[in-house]
Amino acid sequence: MTERPHTPLLDRVAGPADLKGMSDRDLTQLAHELRAETIHAVSGTGGHLGSGLGVVELTVALHAVFDTPRDRLIWDVSHQCYPHKILTGRRDRMHTLRQKDGLSGFTKRAESPYDPFGAAHSSTSISAALGFAMGRELGAPEVGDAIAVIGDGALSGGMAYEALNHAGHLKKRLIVILNDNEMSIAPPVGAMSSYLSRLYAGAPFQDFTTAAKTAVGFLPPPLQEGARRAKEMIKGMTVGGTLFEELGFSYVGPIDGHDMESLLQVLRTVKVRATGPILIHAVTQKGKGYAEHRADRGHATAKFDVATGEQKKAPSNAPSYTKVFAQSLIQEAAEDDRIVAVTAAMPDGTGLNLFAERFPARCFDVGIAEQHGVTFCAGMAAAGLKPFAAIYSTFLQRGYDQVVHDVALQNLPVRFAIDRAGLVGADGATHAGSFDIAYLSNLPNFTIMAAADEAELRHMVATAAAHDSGPIAFRFPRGEGVGCEMPERGEPLEIGRGRIVQEGERVAILSFGARLREVEAACEKLAARGIKPTVADARFAKPLDRELILSLAQGHEALITIEEGAVGGFGSHVAQLLASEGVFDSGLRFRSMVLPDRFIDQAGPSQMYESAGLQAEDIEGMVLRVLDVEVLERRA
Amino acid sequence: MTERPHTPLLDRVAGPADLKGMSDRDLTQLAHELRAETIHAVSGTGGHLGSGLGVVELTVALHAVFDTPRDRLIWDVSHQCYPHKILTGRRDRMHTLRQKDGLSGFTKRAESPYDPFGAAHSSTSISAALGFAMGRELGAPEVGDAIAVIGDGALSGGMAYEALNHAGHLKKRLIVILNDNEMSIAPPVGAMSSYLSRLYAGAPFQDFTTAAKTAVGFLPPPLQEGARRAKEMIKGMTVGGTLFEELGFSYVGPIDGHDMESLLQVLRTVKVRATGPILIHAVTQKGKGYAEHRADRGHATAKFDVATGEQKKAPSNAPSYTKVFAQSLIQEAAEDDRIVAVTAAMPDGTGLNLFAERFPARCFDVGIAEQHGVTFCAGMAAAGLKPFAAIYSTFLQRGYDQVVHDVALQNLPVRFAIDRAGLVGADGATHAGSFDIAYLSNLPNFTIMAAADEAELRHMVATAAAHDSGPIAFRFPRGEGVGCEMPERGEPLEIGRGRIVQEGERVAILSFGARLREVEAACEKLAARGIKPTVADARFAKPLDRELILSLAQGHEALITIEEGAVGGFGSHVAQLLASEGVFDSGLRFRSMVLPDRFIDQAGPSQMYESAGLQAEDIEGMVLRVLDVEVLERRA
Repeated sequence: MTERPHTPLLDRVAGPADLKGMSDRDLTQLAHELRAETIHAVSGTGGHLGSGLGVVELTVALHAVFDTPRDRLIWDVSHQCYPHKILTGRRDRMHTLRQKDGLSGFTKRAESPYDPFGAAHSSTSISAALGFAMGRELGAPEVGDAIAVIGDGALSGGMAYEALNHAGHLKKRLIVILNDNEMSIAPPVGAMSSYLSRLYAGAPFQDFTTAAKTAVGFLPPPLQEGARRAKEMIKGMTVGGTLFEELGFSYVGPIDGHDMESLLQVLRTVKVRATGPILIHAVTQKGKGYAEHRADRGHATAKFDVATGEQKKAPSNAPSYTKVFAQSLIQEAAEDDRIVAVTAAMPDGTGLNLFAERFPARCFDVGIAEQHGVTFCAGMAAAGLKPFAAIYSTFLQRGYDQVVHDVALQNLPVRFAIDRAGLVGADGATHAGSFDIAYLSNLPNFTIMAAADEAELRHMVATAAAHDSGPIAFRFPRGEGVGCEMPERGEPLEIGRGRIVQEGERVAILSFGARLREVEAACEKLAARGIKPTVADARFAKPLDRELILSLAQGHEALITIEEGAVGGFGSHVAQLLASEGVFDSGLRFRSMVLPDRFIDQAGPSQMYESAGLQAEDIEGMVLRVLDVEVLERRA
Repeated sequence: MTERPHTPLLDRVAGPADLKGMSDRDLTQLAHELRAETIHAVSGTGGHLGSGLGVVELTVALHAVFDTPRDRLIWDVSHQCYPHKILTGRRDRMHTLRQKDGLSGFTKRAESPYDPFGAAHSSTSISAALGFAMGRELGAPEVGDAIAVIGDGALSGGMAYEALNHAGHLKKRLIVILNDNEMSIAPPVGAMSSYLSRLYAGAPFQDFTTAAKTAVGFLPPPLQEGARRAKEMIKGMTVGGTLFEELGFSYVGPIDGHDMESLLQVLRTVKVRATGPILIHAVTQKGKGYAEHRADRGHATAKFDVATGEQKKAPSNAPSYTKVFAQSLIQEAAEDDRIVAVTAAMPDGTGLNLFAERFPARCFDVGIAEQHGVTFCAGMAAAGLKPFAAIYSTFLQRGYDQVVHDVALQNLPVRFAIDRAGLVGADGATHAGSFDIAYLSNLPNFTIMAAADEAELRHMVATAAAHDSGPIAFRFPRGEGVGCEMPERGEPLEIGRGRIVQEGERVAILSFGARLREVEAACEKLAARGIKPTVADARFAKPLDRELILSLAQGHEALITIEEGAVGGFGSHVAQLLASEGVFDSGLRFRSMVLPDRFIDQAGPSQMYESAGLQAEDIEGMVLRVLDVEVLERRA
């Protein structure tokens, strides 16, 4: 944490109401202070900095002009919500950002009435805003305007287009602000992005001051005249934007999203005059005022020193799973030119930036478009290529129907590299990879693996590369590996075979994925009591290692499964096998340790797993209980 | 089946190669014969008629000009594939369409090399075609052109836009044919649809004959000149279409999709000249030549008499579940004006057409846009309305991330009416509702119900209307109810409480959903052996009726669960409860009957359930086996 900036105006703001009496000049000054405060806050916590810095002026202008929280302001993805949080009564808790029991890094309904709709996945804001708008039209009390702020990157997601298409059809008043910073997490791809750039390339920003002032000058409008005039007025503010107009929106822009006067005038005009759906195209710079010259525009940062920009990262002891995945895939691809890789706008997060450096023609960033990405992979697989779709667990949900309908049903050999499986830490519940084991393992034709450590991950990449007879997925957690010895090259695993890690007696623990280290830690604690469980790494949730599982069941009093996922996944498939084989008929102390039936808020990953009851001492406790060994209460 | 039409040219066609030597005049005649043959075939089988009739000329022209199957022709949704099947060697099996062991009603990779990519869900074709195109660019052997044929309705799906956006970015040769018939299943909604209409409203179709002939006349083009000329040539064929051009596509059209000469000229020109992505806008009439004047354009039909058009439907004994849902929802909505309903382009299929007649302002057709539809509901719920999202089980997969991220995570009271749960008959594997129990039941905050019969469905609609504290879903099967007595009004059920249907002994059968009638039929068979199981209807997969389940487990030697879904769902949640309560420790003959781990091809619903092993005699067999009663082999 560095020295608190001087913020005399901001210090007087307890909430958006305090902006109402300020002059335009004061609001401009407030924006400067808000930017300094945002930088200061994030320097102490780390987090998403660049997005918020790009919308400081917009945030101030929106809260100054509109009547939040009655007017519903919805931030798409909401990485950019930090300035909004500071202005809406949460300034004094910014030091708790993304920490246990602290503020969420995203907007969150439970946190504030100023967050009418939470977000963290992309492209949802127009749909949600349209829902509020229709609520208003149908008489829902206390719903005023509905305003979605969406980035150009998020506009590559198909659901944003679905929402524009529906909103243009319904023709009700709805305000969409396109925050065009030419940068989502990576530079955005897609024809839409080029189109947006052309809208302002080489042309000066529009000066709406006169038009807008005239528009406001008409107040109060004769009601019969209002609608027609509004349309003309807004029309007069438009340059280009045909594509949005074809979809039924009025288009205003492009405007300079850092010019407070322009923003205020345009928003005031729109507030008074808009009748149907309107899109305001604001051009901003991600990272404005601090990180706009960095390659990543300060997208996500650790704690940092404001003066030097130096980030304070903890030293790492082992390579990240992501990096091991990328390097392993590069190894495979060097020997098999049919291997291609696909990311949905996350080249850095998935490690595919490394792959793209080596094999630029074989790496595809499809935009924030998991649906298309999955079916695009299915098409490439049908053409004889070997596509790896590298998508976080939580985002693969966006392409679920395509996984079922285009991949599984057609038995096409698409490889799914599922990063961020399980609980992920500071990004919290919205980013948890909790459901993929369940939603994939019951799909016919699929092979499902989870890596116990980074060496296993390398073998699983090789396994997936070699497996050409149907779809295959491997999941691995966020963060650093365990520091195990790495094989030079991955070796394909035998499909559907687990491995015994430790031979023991009385109780067998069958782990699927990266809880294995916690199981081993639990075994160390149990050794003190003279209990030595058998430990196995299932490797595969599908096909199950039937022989291994039945042998563990027959050779032990108790069998415990553990996985980093919700019920319905690995443990459920094991239970189904045991039931159908009649293993329960004569008694087996079977337990399945899974994520609990609640969303877990952000905290350190191990704190989250502690909350979930999947840490070493939870495993130890489970073993003691299942063996009826007297248990001392460890936790309050 | 009516008299076979006279088809001398078609009779000479064994496959697309036979079209290559035909004159344009012959191809026109062939199209007439193909239309008659299509009508004849569907009159004997029932099926999707209108879509195919709209693309008869297009089908002939595409196979005449392009080199299928090397050129990959991908039909979006593929309702329109019947003429294609007739031309590609499957004419003699058209009488088996949509029947057990017969031809699929959709394109299917396993069925023919002329079906390079199967479909049944909407808006996937451009993604798949782009996959093939990139396969070709990366040297995949035997991949020629990639051609997607997509309807204007399918263009409302966001993934189609994602694919256009990516294709426009990649700039590789790709041919998209927009089959614009202003009619998907229902009239399409959305601003895009209005835009497409404006492209040809009031203007005559373009006559490309001269331009196209000139273009072809340039053959063979000097290679250096080819690209530039192609662009100019194609540019000269364009009127409007700015929206697609902004997305990086060349636009050709609109053209009359029933004018064989225009089609041939345009396709020949495109084949020779196209370098990057190109969109051909063909305007057609759904149902052309037979059903174009019907309200539904002959979308789906039972067997019918060609001369009279009269459909031969079996008389129904009970109201359909769909109709009971719609009527029950109307009852609730009449007393609660906060209730609104949303369909994704399926007003008739979901029964919401009835709701829309009664409450037009409270019913929303969002287009083929499940993602937007779900989040739009979440927004309306956040505004205080009571939205019912009526979406088939298989299509809800398209909105899964929105269900997780926007509904469950925010605990918003969206009601999901999940029609077509379980196996569905003639539409086959692509339409099976197999996975929703698993993919919903492990979501925190959700309440999940399944209706055992149509009376239960009515109560569940009332339960959902009354349940305002979080998301709730109820699933029900396709087709007629069981004919039970109907309550006048639905009464809200107690959340998380099942019911005992029959008290018995030794074995308890716990049913979730509409297999209950099969369970009762099994009990009748078992009665002859002196076995009387206890039968319970779980009603809820979440929250589980813990008390009921533990009491069934404790009071019986065996407990069998049954559901119309894949493993990971109801039975898995019951197993998790039993395991965590230690019920297995001392032995319980527990079995969970679920859908098998394979996709089940189309057949009659009961044939499909027989294949799945979920019919009365399977349940009887399971009871006998679990009780160790000697079992006679009933089936070969």
